[in-house]
Amino acid sequence: MTSHSIEEIAAALGAEALGAVSLRVTGAAEPQAAAPDELALAMTPAYGEALTRGRARAAVIWPGADWQALGLEAAIVAPRARLAMAQLTQLLDSAPSGPGEVHPSAVIGESARVDGALIGPLCVVGEGAEIGAGTRLEAHVTVAPGARIGQDCRLAAGVRIQRNCRIGDRVILQPNATIGGDGFSFVTRDVSNAERARAALGDARLEPPEDPVWHRIHSLGGVEIGDDVEVGSNSAVDAGTIRATRIGRGTKVDNLVQVGHNVVIGEDCLICGATGIAGSTVVGDRTVLGGATGVVDNLKIGSDVVTGAGTLVLSNVPSGRIMMGSPAMPMTAHLASYKALRRLPRLLRDLASAKKPVPKPDPND
Amino acid sequence: MTSHSIEEIAAALGAEALGAVSLRVTGAAEPQAAAPDELALAMTPAYGEALTRGRARAAVIWPGADWQALGLEAAIVAPRARLAMAQLTQLLDSAPSGPGEVHPSAVIGESARVDGALIGPLCVVGEGAEIGAGTRLEAHVTVAPGARIGQDCRLAAGVRIQRNCRIGDRVILQPNATIGGDGFSFVTRDVSNAERARAALGDARLEPPEDPVWHRIHSLGGVEIGDDVEVGSNSAVDAGTIRATRIGRGTKVDNLVQVGHNVVIGEDCLICGATGIAGSTVVGDRTVLGGATGVVDNLKIGSDVVTGAGTLVLSNVPSGRIMMGSPAMPMTAHLASYKALRRLPRLLRDLASAKKPVPKPDPND
Amino acid sequence: MTSHSIEEIAAALGAEALGAVSLRVTGAAEPQAAAPDELALAMTPAYGEALTRGRARAAVIWPGADWQALGLEAAIVAPRARLAMAQLTQLLDSAPSGPGEVHPSAVIGESARVDGALIGPLCVVGEGAEIGAGTRLEAHVTVAPGARIGQDCRLAAGVRIQRNCRIGDRVILQPNATIGGDGFSFVTRDVSNAERARAALGDARLEPPEDPVWHRIHSLGGVEIGDDVEVGSNSAVDAGTIRATRIGRGTKVDNLVQVGHNVVIGEDCLICGATGIAGSTVVGDRTVLGGATGVVDNLKIGSDVVTGAGTLVLSNVPSGRIMMGSPAMPMTAHLASYKALRRLPRLLRDLASAKKPVPKPDPND
Repeated sequence: MTSHSIEEIAAALGAEALGAVSLRVTGAAEPQAAAPDELALAMTPAYGEALTRGRARAAVIWPGADWQALGLEAAIVAPRARLAMAQLTQLLDSAPSGPGEVHPSAVIGESARVDGALIGPLCVVGEGAEIGAGTRLEAHVTVAPGARIGQDCRLAAGVRIQRNCRIGDRVILQPNATIGGDGFSFVTRDVSNAERARAALGDARLEPPEDPVWHRIHSLGGVEIGDDVEVGSNSAVDAGTIRATRIGRGTKVDNLVQVGHNVVIGEDCLICGATGIAGSTVVGDRTVLGGATGVVDNLKIGSDVVTGAGTLVLSNVPSGRIMMGSPAMPMTAHLASYKALRRLPRLLRDLASAKKPVPKPDPND
Repeated sequence: MTSHSIEEIAAALGAEALGAVSLRVTGAAEPQAAAPDELALAMTPAYGEALTRGRARAAVIWPGADWQALGLEAAIVAPRARLAMAQLTQLLDSAPSGPGEVHPSAVIGESARVDGALIGPLCVVGEGAEIGAGTRLEAHVTVAPGARIGQDCRLAAGVRIQRNCRIGDRVILQPNATIGGDGFSFVTRDVSNAERARAALGDARLEPPEDPVWHRIHSLGGVEIGDDVEVGSNSAVDAGTIRATRIGRGTKVDNLVQVGHNVVIGEDCLICGATGIAGSTVVGDRTVLGGATGVVDNLKIGSDVVTGAGTLVLSNVPSGRIMMGSPAMPMTAHLASYKALRRLPRLLRDLASAKKPVPKPDPND
Repeated sequence: MTSHSIEEIAAALGAEALGAVSLRVTGAAEPQAAAPDELALAMTPAYGEALTRGRARAAVIWPGADWQALGLEAAIVAPRARLAMAQLTQLLDSAPSGPGEVHPSAVIGESARVDGALIGPLCVVGEGAEIGAGTRLEAHVTVAPGARIGQDCRLAAGVRIQRNCRIGDRVILQPNATIGGDGFSFVTRDVSNAERARAALGDARLEPPEDPVWHRIHSLGGVEIGDDVEVGSNSAVDAGTIRATRIGRGTKVDNLVQVGHNVVIGEDCLICGATGIAGSTVVGDRTVLGGATGVVDNLKIGSDVVTGAGTLVLSNVPSGRIMMGSPAMPMTAHLASYKALRRLPRLLRDLASAKKPVPKPDPND
């Protein structure tokens, strides 16, 4: 990392600099681990004690902290800790960039357009594909024939872009993310076990169907990803059937997330790790799906919805709702059910004992 | 896409063509988005209104639809909508194929046999591996030494086939799918925490074991995948210990699915996204595991079983059962429990208030 | 496989050999499938009958088995079946190894150090990266500039090692595993929907925030993986923010596991398939997280903890606890709740019928 003065960093953060503001640091560290040339990050009072154990001369501190009493020579005051982290880590990030260049080991289709893009070693870009200026493909990236990728994107190692995909500008795709694999869409000639189960009343027993062969519905619609989207490591976004699966501008998708065929996700959403959204479900804007949320197919999830970790969504959710539980309920109902469930064993014991005839007094007493 | 006449398409679907059957279309689209040269897909009455908003001249419609009133010049009647989709999308799919050819950038072992296969750029095929005629490896596919892949398969970018794997004919493996990674199988010298927990009664506290080192059980058995199987993006099928992990003919596995070592899955099953099946479990034929189903190790799941999304299977399931919930119960029992759970908080309030002494009348009233 | 005598195998297992101990076998098999030159594995009495159906002349048997009555010529007695499996499968594993060598198709940075390592076809090793002697990179592995990998490791096809990662000795990374992708860490300028939901009391409705744009916190801390760690196929371990995400010595991580940024996992843990551990959570030593366990962010999970499959951990867990359920409870409480839940529908029916007025006698009776 190159070095930065406290003054420069504070300016980049739009924050106040105090003390020896020309002091220079080469990186950031946790308070107890900070070296003398590192900026300690102590953005809440909980880190105060750790600061005194480290060797930092400068720190980002919480509003109101007595930086001199904490043994610092310089300080930056951060009113919103995580926002300061965003700005600071961006400043310190020495991610390589540079002029467009194609590594000689990459295989680029003759009709592909990659002017101004940086194509890393052993990448494959198919015929007719287009990659925008300023976009960087790390090693081992595959771009299918005809796919289009915007400007200033970063595609990490092992990313797969399949046919009919259109990726916006400033999109970040983490390693081994798959965009545009075929949708999981199959149908039997007659009514299948899955259809019978959906229609079943009571505890129907399913019998072997006469013709159990699954016929494949091909995925012709590709994927459309808006500007400023991020998709995490080893996640998969499937192609739509006859129109694109869509992820809206500014939405961030974590690792190991499954986005099914025909799904539409709006703008500025957060889709946390290990979440799955099944085929044709529509999600609004600014919705946050907590880790390992499951959403079944063909639902409508509104805007400004938040689900807790592990929520299983089996029916439509109106905008603005906070949902939890498996199956999902509004937060209050879920918490009440959970509390009641924990008290239930005792209740059942009490009721059982209440049913017993009152024991007669022992005549020997 | 090349163009097809309505008559040709109807014939391919085994369906009835009506009106100007020689009209030609170049693709398919949703009713409201269809261009004049696209075939609108309006297979249920719900799409009728959307048809009138689009510009399609021809559509696939539901039985009984008044196609002329819907403003169409030609129509195809589809009695089973999704089956027609399967046939139609296959017809319209312009997936590349061609004579066997090896891209010059691929690395092919001298003793590998790839006659008639299409090997894409930067693939690696190990010594002694065999790849059948008509099979296509997209870019960046790895086939380990000695692995065998049948005819007319498609292995998408980033697929990994490890040692001792045998893949049937017409198998489709989506991007970044891993077949034959080592099983997760470890043992400690003495009784481990995991074993103690299984044997525990009551709330035993686990103490540090004397020798906590995990010894590795190697995976020598590989994977056997039957004909017409599909495995989704970023899914993993682990190698068996001393015999193969097996996936039966015609079974379809979705994205981000984990199939543990020694698992046996029967024929014509659907294993939906984000499902995990732990080691040595056996699944019958035609079974459908809904999204994010979890099945623990060493179980027997019968044939014609269907699980709902998010089901956690902790014990054997007989054939023909519909299971839901976490832990899994038969559907009726699960729905009854869920309904009861939602009513429970009120019940507890009622019971609590019933216990309170009856308030005495206010003498001032 | 090369052949081994019963005597040699028993010696390698530290076990007792009986009968014709010079008999040679070329591999291991399940009892019913064993060929005459294969060692049958029949380590519990449940396999006795299967032995008589196979053609094995020698077997690994349980203590006390009458090997002659089972039709065997030679036998090895295994007091701890799975430990014998570990030793035996290691002995029979013919995984290739050999002197360090760099495949001519690999792309190695000029300043990278790979002496004594085996670099497979089409691997990429970035500038300044270091790979220890005896380490084997299979095909299509990416090692970012500056990453460090220890000795005697095995990195399977498609493994991605991102910048700032340090991997210990004897580490095994399964195909398509991703180490060091960027953490999922975003912040809005003002209070986000996610923050509002955490603070919400009752069923607050979330309204669109004024500025919904997610700002990215960059991941500068990389990943540190200790000696003897294994990470499964298609799993992802994210980079830390300003210090490394850490996985301790001897810990084994299964397939499709998500380890979030800043997470610290101790030594000798087992993290089973499809588990997700969210950002900044700390896990102790020897802890076993069952399949599809979810752990939310910023928690402390102690040492010697065991969670059942599908456990959802929403709060800190002290050392030594056995946890189950979604949300997690101590095992006994979970089992009691589950039992009570199954009895609940009947209870509600009973209570409902008790409330009904007693029907009056029919005067016509």
